[in-house]
Amino acid sequence: MIDFQTHPDRYRHWRITFDGPVATLTLNVAEDGGLFPGYELKLNSYDLGVDIELYDATQRLRFEHPEVGAVILTSARDRVFCAGANIRALAAASHPFKVNFCRFTNETRIAIEDASRNSGQTWLTAINGSCAGGGYEMALATEHLLMADDGSTAVSLPEIPLLAVLPGTGGLTRLVDKRHVRRDLADAFCTTEEGVRGVRAVEWRLVDEVVPRTKLPATARERAHRFAESSSRPRDARGIVLGPLARRIEPDGIVYPNLKIAIDRQAGAAYVTIYGPDAPAPSSLAEIHAQGDRFWPLAVARELDDAICHLRFNEETIGTWVFRAEGDARAVAGHDQTLLEHRKDWLVNEIILYLKRTLTRLEVTSRSLFALIEPGSCFAGTLLELALAADRSWMLAGRREGDETPPATIMLTEANFGLYPMLNGLTRLGTRFFGADAHLEQLRARIGDRFEAEAARELGLATFAPDDLDWRDEVRIAIEERVAFSPDALTGMEASLRFAGPETMETKIFARLAAWQNWIFQRPNAAGEAGALKTYGTGKRAEFDRRRA
Amino acid sequence: MIDFQTHPDRYRHWRITFDGPVATLTLNVAEDGGLFPGYELKLNSYDLGVDIELYDATQRLRFEHPEVGAVILTSARDRVFCAGANIRALAAASHPFKVNFCRFTNETRIAIEDASRNSGQTWLTAINGSCAGGGYEMALATEHLLMADDGSTAVSLPEIPLLAVLPGTGGLTRLVDKRHVRRDLADAFCTTEEGVRGVRAVEWRLVDEVVPRTKLPATARERAHRFAESSSRPRDARGIVLGPLARRIEPDGIVYPNLKIAIDRQAGAAYVTIYGPDAPAPSSLAEIHAQGDRFWPLAVARELDDAICHLRFNEETIGTWVFRAEGDARAVAGHDQTLLEHRKDWLVNEIILYLKRTLTRLEVTSRSLFALIEPGSCFAGTLLELALAADRSWMLAGRREGDETPPATIMLTEANFGLYPMLNGLTRLGTRFFGADAHLEQLRARIGDRFEAEAARELGLATFAPDDLDWRDEVRIAIEERVAFSPDALTGMEASLRFAGPETMETKIFARLAAWQNWIFQRPNAAGEAGALKTYGTGKRAEFDRRRA
Repeated sequence: MIDFQTHPDRYRHWRITFDGPVATLTLNVAEDGGLFPGYELKLNSYDLGVDIELYDATQRLRFEHPEVGAVILTSARDRVFCAGANIRALAAASHPFKVNFCRFTNETRIAIEDASRNSGQTWLTAINGSCAGGGYEMALATEHLLMADDGSTAVSLPEIPLLAVLPGTGGLTRLVDKRHVRRDLADAFCTTEEGVRGVRAVEWRLVDEVVPRTKLPATARERAHRFAESSSRPRDARGIVLGPLARRIEPDGIVYPNLKIAIDRQAGAAYVTIYGPDAPAPSSLAEIHAQGDRFWPLAVARELDDAICHLRFNEETIGTWVFRAEGDARAVAGHDQTLLEHRKDWLVNEIILYLKRTLTRLEVTSRSLFALIEPGSCFAGTLLELALAADRSWMLAGRREGDETPPATIMLTEANFGLYPMLNGLTRLGTRFFGADAHLEQLRARIGDRFEAEAARELGLATFAPDDLDWRDEVRIAIEERVAFSPDALTGMEASLRFAGPETMETKIFARLAAWQNWIFQRPNAAGEAGALKTYGTGKRAEFDRRRA
Repeated sequence: MIDFQTHPDRYRHWRITFDGPVATLTLNVAEDGGLFPGYELKLNSYDLGVDIELYDATQRLRFEHPEVGAVILTSARDRVFCAGANIRALAAASHPFKVNFCRFTNETRIAIEDASRNSGQTWLTAINGSCAGGGYEMALATEHLLMADDGSTAVSLPEIPLLAVLPGTGGLTRLVDKRHVRRDLADAFCTTEEGVRGVRAVEWRLVDEVVPRTKLPATARERAHRFAESSSRPRDARGIVLGPLARRIEPDGIVYPNLKIAIDRQAGAAYVTIYGPDAPAPSSLAEIHAQGDRFWPLAVARELDDAICHLRFNEETIGTWVFRAEGDARAVAGHDQTLLEHRKDWLVNEIILYLKRTLTRLEVTSRSLFALIEPGSCFAGTLLELALAADRSWMLAGRREGDETPPATIMLTEANFGLYPMLNGLTRLGTRFFGADAHLEQLRARIGDRFEAEAARELGLATFAPDDLDWRDEVRIAIEERVAFSPDALTGMEASLRFAGPETMETKIFARLAAWQNWIFQRPNAAGEAGALKTYGTGKRAEFDRRRA
């Protein structure tokens, strides 16, 4: 089992140090610290384990260090910054693992950009040695790239000439869309194994500045302190502690305090139940801070985040995730109200951003997402986003026979209208009703109303509204039907239907770029016995089918 | 050899009829008329040959029929509109053929939308029987869908449940982005083999109206005449004739009047030379009409269009296309001036749109595109777009030793600033200098200037500017290097780097959707021995690897 929970005390590959408002994350990969046996993590190359630590660091810097306004990414090695993803690990991995590995690293890069843009924690990179492939892509996720001008340090994306695959972590997209590298220069760069160094790297916009090697650390610190000065984060606040998740892993599920997973292996489905808050929302900001990682919205975000990563990697054949929510809708709405009221507070801002990132993680997951809205459920506001993220939802009309629980209702809150934008920049409602602005306005006027099944269906907020007589069969058939379809076709369909409307750098990375990479990962030219991933390092030349597709 | 040239007299699958300003295209696929042996085109299913005729029809309706303001797409069969792409043909095809087939059909669908939006020729569909898969996707490319309400006629996208592949011609994207079908309903629709009929199809926005079967033809005609009434096309103009292309196919190339292809099989490269006009531009609109298909911009568009299709399908292993332009830049600029001056004329508008479509066809081609700008070349305005579409360009600085030809120059014309938008909606210059608006403004101020190599390089209009001493080696090495890379990796890279900036429905179809489809086409679940494409129709169930990637 791959565990996504870690702590700086247990890091094997990263060191975090602090200098007032500037944190430095130093990469020093333990060669023998690979997540799986069979390869050595040479030259600061990484595997998923290295990235799990990086992800943990981004989270702790946000929540535990409100005083940090800038983060320097650098390497502890003398002549190497980072060689990118470890090729032997990649070549040995299964296709689903490769794809999910790239997905997770992409999410961590986007979380870094989210910190720079929305948390007042600006990341920069001090490239103090060879910076290749995924190493350069990590740097591209930061806002300012400094590089040693020592005649040898270079940035490069050698994947295409060396490995016959694409840079897998957004590099191509960030070159042209984020850094505005001219497309013909980007073409030349991506096909030049040795990369580009010195002044030319600045001219081509590949890095922001080059400085003499001896001056690199001091210059990076100086830039970082300048970024930190303009940060909105409070210097004198106290962070909260992200304590260990109380998690019980069972053969067919996981139990967290606020979330439970039950796996039906026959149906290829995981039932994910989220429990609403068992107490009213805190009445003051101080109380939120005092609750810390027990504050319900944050606790749910952490548990859901962990659950998504767990199911993706450790339950590859479970293709359908069925969401339920149990509890008091008013308590959920009350928590939304509290988040909205205090959103200018650094911690509340972080919690909102974390929920946003977790919901987007759900949507780029290659699983069918269903929601079941039943009597006793609490799909309101923030939790309603789960139903809106789902590929389909069923809402039970009326009561269950012999059950006094009142009929299920759903409720919109202000949180549904902008707190958690999707990766395409729109709200989930905005994407759902793309091109129907008037309907969106009508929905906004009905914030706080409780809709029963038929009303929810008519408003387009639930897909189907069967009554108790039809419920069981209709839901069962839909789940069984899903398991009969090709998992690949479903993945391609879901990635297409979930994102109507505009595209952003992020959606380009997860759909356009990742889809090309998936294709290439599957092609004999890369992954076949004579393909470049297999022949790399053997001295043999890869054999290519030269037909262009 | 697959020939993309045809004529209504030779059509085997379509019939065009005229009723004043309304044309009707009736599909009646000849079962024994497949492009290749081994399958029958039953139930109005299509292969590439059927689509080549459809493409020819779209072109002739534009150029030969200025009086036509609306086009009805329908079927000659009693209970079937179109069953989509022929599965046996698809299953038997090589991966590169599959991908290029989808690419071409996508381009034809987009050409139909271009006619509706920009040519005053609005397409609509009268669905008079089962309309499945690619058949429905063809209908989705039209602006108004009428369906017979007869209890059996349905629209469907059964690819995912039946074949484990995606609808391959933009269907998923058009559902949510063009027709604004709600994503959860789209999910239900795309996983329902039998599709949706009657009123529900209207409620789900899958079609625009349903009418009793007996009233379908008359209603379609009525709607078409109404569309035609608001068309900008002249009722009393005379069309021009698109005569047969004068084309000589040789073992290693093709010679057209204005374009020559020479293939270097060793280098995997096709050298495409375009000849500038050999006479000044016509001085009047009447003269343009009199020249008809000999008018240089139209002649070049037709030849380039044919050349692209030919090279894609008939020369699959030629991975690099190297563009040259020979002639007088001033004559090219003069023709640009003429196009701009008369752009409100229906014919000139059609020529501009055709050049636009042909340039976009070039950019979604999975080949490396290089441009060589040498003394004697005429990369000005419209032809400069070829160099701007290229992945890299080389411009020779100064003269060639022992050659009195003056140094190469390039020239911007007004045509470079909006006449030929890319599929992303930006100009090629706007995409190239995405995020650098001030530079774009500077370039606009220099329309008509002639830039030599170094100036062009500094302005970012040429990638490299070697002198005669370095030219031969530098260009040779770049071409040789390209042939050593994985064709798949290059395709993925080029598709990513060519389209900085915004995305449109069209770029989503060619990159996001097509990349997922390519991946799925390569996955064992679809294409393997036990995959759904292979087991279809055998009575056997496909076996799926259930791991989600």
